[in-house]
Amino acid sequence: MGAFHEGHLQLMRTAKRETDRVVVSLFVNPTQFGKGEDFSKYPRDLERDARLADEAGVDVLFAPPVEEMYPRLATSVHVPVVTDLWEGEVRPTHFDGVATIVCKLFNIVRPTVAYFGQKDLQQCIVIGRMVEDLNMPLKLSIQPTVRESDGLAMSSRNVYLSSEERAVAPRIYQELIRCQTEITKREYGDNVSPIVENSKDSLESLGFRVDYLNLIDMDSTEKSDHLVDRAAIIVAARLGTTRLIDNVILNVASHA
Amino acid sequence: MGAFHEGHLQLMRTAKRETDRVVVSLFVNPTQFGKGEDFSKYPRDLERDARLADEAGVDVLFAPPVEEMYPRLATSVHVPVVTDLWEGEVRPTHFDGVATIVCKLFNIVRPTVAYFGQKDLQQCIVIGRMVEDLNMPLKLSIQPTVRESDGLAMSSRNVYLSSEERAVAPRIYQELIRCQTEITKREYGDNVSPIVENSKDSLESLGFRVDYLNLIDMDSTEKSDHLVDRAAIIVAARLGTTRLIDNVILNVASHA
Repeated sequence: MGAFHEGHLQLMRTAKRETDRVVVSLFVNPTQFGKGEDFSKYPRDLERDARLADEAGVDVLFAPPVEEMYPRLATSVHVPVVTDLWEGEVRPTHFDGVATIVCKLFNIVRPTVAYFGQKDLQQCIVIGRMVEDLNMPLKLSIQPTVRESDGLAMSSRNVYLSSEERAVAPRIYQELIRCQTEITKREYGDNVSPIVENSKDSLESLGFRVDYLNLIDMDSTEKSDHLVDRAAIIVAARLGTTRLIDNVILNVASHA
Repeated sequence: MGAFHEGHLQLMRTAKRETDRVVVSLFVNPTQFGKGEDFSKYPRDLERDARLADEAGVDVLFAPPVEEMYPRLATSVHVPVVTDLWEGEVRPTHFDGVATIVCKLFNIVRPTVAYFGQKDLQQCIVIGRMVEDLNMPLKLSIQPTVRESDGLAMSSRNVYLSSEERAVAPRIYQELIRCQTEITKREYGDNVSPIVENSKDSLESLGFRVDYLNLIDMDSTEKSDHLVDRAAIIVAARLGTTRLIDNVILNVASHA
């Protein structure tokens, strides 16, 4: 997207370490913003981003103008099922926009490995599904979310937080960790609902408006009230006008 | 699709002459058939097709089972505008099915050049739009329609024609040629409508039910009542239960 932060830069450094040549796309994609979303005010600073990418060892920065990527009403890619819930519910056309631009970028760059950050977990799942369904010849590498020292997931949108909001924002991750701990300790046996409901209530009482906080099956993205093989806890919550998302993946191997 | 005929075989021979290695897909694609269309009775003969492809110099015949290509409700590709009219009107989900399977095949085979027959002109236009919109790294080569000695365009569906129907079927191409001649001679000045209406009437009086017969702009696929730069005359007509399509491209350079 753009407005590179440490999360992006670590993706670039990892890619540089693991591959021969790194291409980074810098493109604020209009088709993944809905009506009334922050496309026009989304932070942009090409010069700064180019310098940061260069310092991270990036070989090619691909920053096309919008009219070059979308010269007309164009072909779109639709990923079913895993786009229906969560971010797909709040932002109905978002993931078609994501899938389409990522498909275009893959065809232009033709990477052997494509790196994405775990922070946008549903996006990773959607892209994984698209790659598999359309037989795209590449591997995905999902990298752990990079966090501020207090646990807040790095995001271009964090700059919108007031200082009061910024102070309380790390509670999202703290609640995720608390859920993870209590779920793996089986505080309520197999039932995870009381645990996530508690966390939801805590966040709400701190002034968050919680869009969702749930355990999901990462294959279907469906909510589960008990632990499954490939599970994650996902959250989206608003502080003032800023919407924050985060997640933790539950490593089932470590539950035993 | 399958049930290879001389049209397919000439595509294969041309590809063999022009490229290093030829991969042919043989796949009757369920997602491009609508309800009540002839998916289950579409002619299939893998052994014969494999032998014919081999004789035409094909290096790889890719004939996957349906469940391997569509293990679940899967990602689809939608091409707008050029899928709305003509075949898209009669078969509303057809071109999404075509675009999706072709996208998958392109990603699996990764051709440098992909060969298609002009007979399915709107399909060629749809695929061309998809390739351009999604920045697919390949070239399309559209090859002229191969015809029986009496002019009937070769098609897997011709086997469904009764002998009476087979005898009258070549009239479709004869009317296309008549239209082409009269349009390039400007029989009615700039107005092509009387010419194509005449041909429509002739076909109807011979027992055809004409779905459409029109001059179109090949960029938009929209009907035009006067000659445009990239024009084609397209026709779809039914004889009994068999639906035949055909087209001629008008070479503007030769109009002068």
